Amino acid sequence: MLSVVILGTGNVAENLFHAFYESTSIRLTQVVGRNEESLKKFQDKTKVSSDFENLVQADIYVIAISDNAIPEISKKITQEGLVVHTSGATPMEVIPTKNRGVFYPLQTFTKGHVLDFSTIPICVEAEDPMSFTKLQQLGECISNKVYGINSEQRKKLHLSAVFANNFSNHLFHISEVLCKEENLSFELLKPLILETVKKLDFLSPLEAQTGPARRKDSESMKRHLELLTDEKQIKLYMLLSEAISKTYEKEL
Amino acid sequence: MLSVVILGTGNVAENLFHAFYESTSIRLTQVVGRNEESLKKFQDKTKVSSDFENLVQADIYVIAISDNAIPEISKKITQEGLVVHTSGATPMEVIPTKNRGVFYPLQTFTKGHVLDFSTIPICVEAEDPMSFTKLQQLGECISNKVYGINSEQRKKLHLSAVFANNFSNHLFHISEVLCKEENLSFELLKPLILETVKKLDFLSPLEAQTGPARRKDSESMKRHLELLTDEKQIKLYMLLSEAISKTYEKEL
Repeated sequence: MLSVVILGTGNVAENLFHAFYESTSIRLTQVVGRNEESLKKFQDKTKVSSDFENLVQADIYVIAISDNAIPEISKKITQEGLVVHTSGATPMEVIPTKNRGVFYPLQTFTKGHVLDFSTIPICVEAEDPMSFTKLQQLGECISNKVYGINSEQRKKLHLSAVFANNFSNHLFHISEVLCKEENLSFELLKPLILETVKKLDFLSPLEAQTGPARRKDSESMKRHLELLTDEKQIKLYMLLSEAISKTYEKEL
Repeated sequence: MLSVVILGTGNVAENLFHAFYESTSIRLTQVVGRNEESLKKFQDKTKVSSDFENLVQADIYVIAISDNAIPEISKKITQEGLVVHTSGATPMEVIPTKNRGVFYPLQTFTKGHVLDFSTIPICVEAEDPMSFTKLQQLGECISNKVYGINSEQRKKLHLSAVFANNFSNHLFHISEVLCKEENLSFELLKPLILETVKKLDFLSPLEAQTGPARRKDSESMKRHLELLTDEKQIKLYMLLSEAISKTYEKEL
């Protein structure tokens, strides 16, 4: 039985809380956060505290707060026990103790929207081999996909996630803006977006690519550009089309 | 009972064939295509022909071929009956007869991968009101989502689909390339990509946006840029981050 304290009350903390709470191999001993209002949602199920000087003893302290607050909060943990953060972009070394690690769930979390953790990849890293094993064990309590990922890999993975999630979401936003210009509902695009992702089950994105830029259909691209008026949209259309054409330049 | 001839044997033709074939309100009377090999997959279920001069009589002729071949093929249809193409990017007017229209299924189709049409939006347009009604009827035989969409709207919708599908798929490709640079499997990113899309069920893309560009977290963006070496990836990272930051500039 692993005992765990969660530091933080945001989207990641809330999602980890539910996953840890459901596991029969984890004892969730405390949730600590500055915001007393946010702590309320946990208080029926475990001890809560807004005082970081008042941590209970645990095997693992999981810091799930904004990246820039990790160094300050991790300093407050003077208890024995493994201290980990959950950030994709933050080096493990910002945690001052030697008994440190990273427990990074590679997913996008939304307030009040609790996800099933069983398929979420958990990327673990630790300074010490025994701590690494302990983190693997913690990961396996909530997910079927636990990976040992070092800091270099994690940095690249986080960057990769920015392209796959943040940037593609912005393209969906542009897509919605264009629909609205013609009084069309964005609902029209949703089955297409879903199928774009489902295709990745049997094709790599390299194979799945379609559209005028891959075919080097310059007439269609010209007509598309004539429809755009926003300067950023025009630049994005051109740059993405060039990037696609270049990727397949040997093909035609 | 509507009788239908399909002209074409590619991905769209194949998918429409299966949807039409399953409907008890449609009589699929012929599939016509240049490629005799491709015709074989239809021959057990309907008449096939590689001779465009040899079309049978039907209520509706559905041209599902590459955009630039539509004018030439549509000229060959001298029979009475409504002639429609299935292209998002092509004006209805390239079809020479007055009894013309568009039957545009807004989806990405893959060879050999048959989709359930019931949730695929079908965008219909016709010159004549009776033909329009007939196309609506045809659409409703295979889908619960049939929309009257004029040519201006359809052009914008097709452009919108390029952002939502073609361009986001290329971002997934970049994401995979970055993973491979660190010997990481793209499988790691798939739950994130799926959740990015699932979020759109309860949040607009504008609300769903996360990441360093929205937060204007310049430190994280600087660290990301240091990891990139490919010039196109760098330009895309900068342009997409600027576009996101601009979208939320009044927020911080």
